[in-house]
Amino acid sequence: MDGSFTENAARRILIRIAYDGTAYSGFQAQSSGVKTICGTIEEALFELTGEKTGLTGGSRTDAGVHALDNVAVFDTVSRIPAEKFAPALNRYLPEDIRITSSVQVPESFHPRRTACLKTYEYRFLSAPVPRPMRRLYTAYTRFPLDTEAMDRAAAYLQGTHDFTSFASIYMQASSPVRTLTEIRVFPEGEETVIRVSGTGFLYNMVRIIAGTLLEAGRGRILPEQMPAILEARDRRTAGQTAPACGLTLVRYEFPEFWSETGKHV
Amino acid sequence: MDGSFTENAARRILIRIAYDGTAYSGFQAQSSGVKTICGTIEEALFELTGEKTGLTGGSRTDAGVHALDNVAVFDTVSRIPAEKFAPALNRYLPEDIRITSSVQVPESFHPRRTACLKTYEYRFLSAPVPRPMRRLYTAYTRFPLDTEAMDRAAAYLQGTHDFTSFASIYMQASSPVRTLTEIRVFPEGEETVIRVSGTGFLYNMVRIIAGTLLEAGRGRILPEQMPAILEARDRRTAGQTAPACGLTLVRYEFPEFWSETGKHV
Repeated sequence: MDGSFTENAARRILIRIAYDGTAYSGFQAQSSGVKTICGTIEEALFELTGEKTGLTGGSRTDAGVHALDNVAVFDTVSRIPAEKFAPALNRYLPEDIRITSSVQVPESFHPRRTACLKTYEYRFLSAPVPRPMRRLYTAYTRFPLDTEAMDRAAAYLQGTHDFTSFASIYMQASSPVRTLTEIRVFPEGEETVIRVSGTGFLYNMVRIIAGTLLEAGRGRILPEQMPAILEARDRRTAGQTAPACGLTLVRYEFPEFWSETGKHV
Repeated sequence: MDGSFTENAARRILIRIAYDGTAYSGFQAQSSGVKTICGTIEEALFELTGEKTGLTGGSRTDAGVHALDNVAVFDTVSRIPAEKFAPALNRYLPEDIRITSSVQVPESFHPRRTACLKTYEYRFLSAPVPRPMRRLYTAYTRFPLDTEAMDRAAAYLQGTHDFTSFASIYMQASSPVRTLTEIRVFPEGEETVIRVSGTGFLYNMVRIIAGTLLEAGRGRILPEQMPAILEARDRRTAGQTAPACGLTLVRYEFPEFWSETGKHV
């Protein structure tokens, strides 16, 4: 009988992850043999603890999408103090992935089955010539954008709606209804930032919203047309899916979970 | 006798160049067989015009250093209108190099023999954990920086001084005297920006200034010690050479040349 399990009870650790998604096939891939954020962290965990433990991610971001604050949990029987996992894992991870914090959570905690509030930023760079130093973190457009029109168009999306028009036709969600708690568009130098918070998003939803707001920014659709696009429940009525590189998951919160483990869980 | 030269007189074209220096061994390399900004643009010129023309750069930035606005000239007998070189070359260049403008200049114009004003920015990222999306464009420090102390220390460097203490021991300049027309340090979110303008810089000078101001920001040297460091004329009295990735050439101006070809030459 192996006594290590009774000596070291399994604990569930919640990590927060920042990454530059440029070099990865997304957080988690359907096919094997490709480099993913998840797989890279699992390898670091194995090197650190010797355990082959699986990572359960919060947001399964697409290839090329970035994160300042994604989350994931894993179980471990190692004796490493919970808060030490962040610095310890960073020693085994490449520089384009950083664990920003690690805390113990209840064994039953599952990031995708816990009420959350996710905030994404989508960035367009609008300039006569693309900026090489921003090419990996923005989507380029040579057209000047009317950010006020974009913000007015975005306002129609706030609240609870059937977002079928703004979801990939490959989405597999059981319901197309989602709630955006806040969506705002504002300029930041040469960049236009779309900041959107919600309790859940359909597949490609933020990138399709960004592609549609781009049309509003160029004057090719009017803000007042947004309700009709929502009501159509037809993907073809919305704009194109904007490129992955412009998208960053900036905040992943568990509002109902704050009392147990502090706001930054 | 070849008549093409009489039909197409050689013109000198001045281009402005933005690049992400991450993947390059600097603007121009001593050794051959390495990838440089200069060599990459010369290849694009050859593909575009069929001419094997050499590029004469303004600032020969080090490996890993970036530019929003470096300059270079080349001579061509092609019939391409001067202002069309920028978009045409961009079609042959990788995305981490962009030509932002192209204008014809007098045949005698030489970027390094024309009075200029160069502005560099050096950026430190100060945070508990490095930010993957900023790793290529900032130098990381886990220490909080006192930007006011850095700005006070920097003020001692403004003006005309013997900058021997702030030059690489490998510098080959005939005189160590240089003029900084302006130097300022200010915070920008989690980043500390050192913005310095001058008519000329010694080898590694901005990176050594940055490394020294970092010490002032950490409280390890006092701003009031800067005059003594300058007066020592000894490289060992200044701080370390800060990493290349934090440095960007942001502006390259030819003040005396404005009247001839407009401010943005």
